[in-house]
Amino acid sequence: MIGGATRLVMLAGDPIGHTKGYAEYAAALASAGVDAAYVPAHVPAGQFAAFLDGARNLRNLAGIVATIPHKRDAFAACRPDAAARRAGSANLLRPAPDGWEGTMLDGAGFLAAVDAAGIPLGGRRVQMLGAGGAGRAVAMAIAERRPSSLAIADPDARRSESLAADVSREFPGLPVAAHLAESDTLVNCSPIGMGTDMALPVREAMIPDGGAVYDIVNRADTPLILAAKRRGCVTDHGRSMMLAQVQMLIRYLFGAR
Amino acid sequence: MIGGATRLVMLAGDPIGHTKGYAEYAAALASAGVDAAYVPAHVPAGQFAAFLDGARNLRNLAGIVATIPHKRDAFAACRPDAAARRAGSANLLRPAPDGWEGTMLDGAGFLAAVDAAGIPLGGRRVQMLGAGGAGRAVAMAIAERRPSSLAIADPDARRSESLAADVSREFPGLPVAAHLAESDTLVNCSPIGMGTDMALPVREAMIPDGGAVYDIVNRADTPLILAAKRRGCVTDHGRSMMLAQVQMLIRYLFGAR
Repeated sequence: MIGGATRLVMLAGDPIGHTKGYAEYAAALASAGVDAAYVPAHVPAGQFAAFLDGARNLRNLAGIVATIPHKRDAFAACRPDAAARRAGSANLLRPAPDGWEGTMLDGAGFLAAVDAAGIPLGGRRVQMLGAGGAGRAVAMAIAERRPSSLAIADPDARRSESLAADVSREFPGLPVAAHLAESDTLVNCSPIGMGTDMALPVREAMIPDGGAVYDIVNRADTPLILAAKRRGCVTDHGRSMMLAQVQMLIRYLFGAR
Repeated sequence: MIGGATRLVMLAGDPIGHTKGYAEYAAALASAGVDAAYVPAHVPAGQFAAFLDGARNLRNLAGIVATIPHKRDAFAACRPDAAARRAGSANLLRPAPDGWEGTMLDGAGFLAAVDAAGIPLGGRRVQMLGAGGAGRAVAMAIAERRPSSLAIADPDARRSESLAADVSREFPGLPVAAHLAESDTLVNCSPIGMGTDMALPVREAMIPDGGAVYDIVNRADTPLILAAKRRGCVTDHGRSMMLAQVQMLIRYLFGAR
């Protein structure tokens, strides 16, 4: 129950209406014994920094979760930890005396989710779609698992090329390229399929028959997931990645309990 | 249940931990069919304007309730309606395209509460304690009921004198003075007794034996209420004033339903 001593965890995104997980966060916070409420914050693109300035005056703000399109702006506004620095992106900020500290949980959350779903990365040809804030963290996480190759495609070629170069620098010797290729495991990190969007993020022929597909969109019936199931793939979607991050968030914002 | 489409109503105050009414607001919002969450915002004194600046970037913010010590700052930051203008104080803001619109519900909430409790004002000698944001609205509300006299006492004599002058200007002919006097009905608008404070806002001899006492502090066992009961007074406290404002708030922020 919300009360006068309740602290706030705000999920900042645009759009925000489609976001999920509120009941799961409420349950996890309560069972951790934390008096905090997880609430949506509809912050338009480009206004994240101004929102943060005002949020400095909110003493009971425990933290801000940044989602699309704010992960790069969150990174720019914080003192990043190693995970955020490597991704060049942050999805969780907490107030510090001199500003904001930030981390990026998408990479660790993604790995926990694919491991639980039995989606293989090591030794496989992996294709990623989307090189935005979450994509950057997921790319670094995939690279840790030493795929046989990693291909990154984004409609904005500068983004995919810049991310491929960054992954190569962090993981010398790993075959990384900014293109679309045949794969064994396909990972969608683009927002396509979010909300009621019925588009595929890639043409259906690129879905690996009998392979594996992870869609970070938190919706069980994205067109990608439905097509992948028809093609006999092992699949999972963003709900598992979101849930994997709940306990990490509680530790980061409220400490060990 | 909070979800992605939930709008926020923030209660801004300092301190905030003692504030109450969250369950009552949640129930009233739900039964009005409004998807909104009422949450505490601990905004330190002097930082209300900076907090408001940041809140402009929060598109799902339905409104801000201002409590101690922000009611005067809220007034200064908004385009006030008639109730707020007369009180020189605002306790509820809503975003408008060009800034904030504000109202002051304490006066109407106070009148609804004293009427329900059977606390008389008209024709009685009324003593008010406290001339802050809420006190200003309550003084104007009492004056509407034409007491035989209205006395206003505040530890800051400039505040009580300025409020007495404002009430006189709005209600010519009404005997209003900035002092402490014998009364039939005593109204505490000071924060004394809030939280775990065990102080009386006035010496006990000034409590009208067999009269009436309303304490706007939202706590059933303030030292003032306990002493007034011992002296045979009709009493009530701020919970009724807070509850009377819930439906007014819903209408102001979410329109007729």
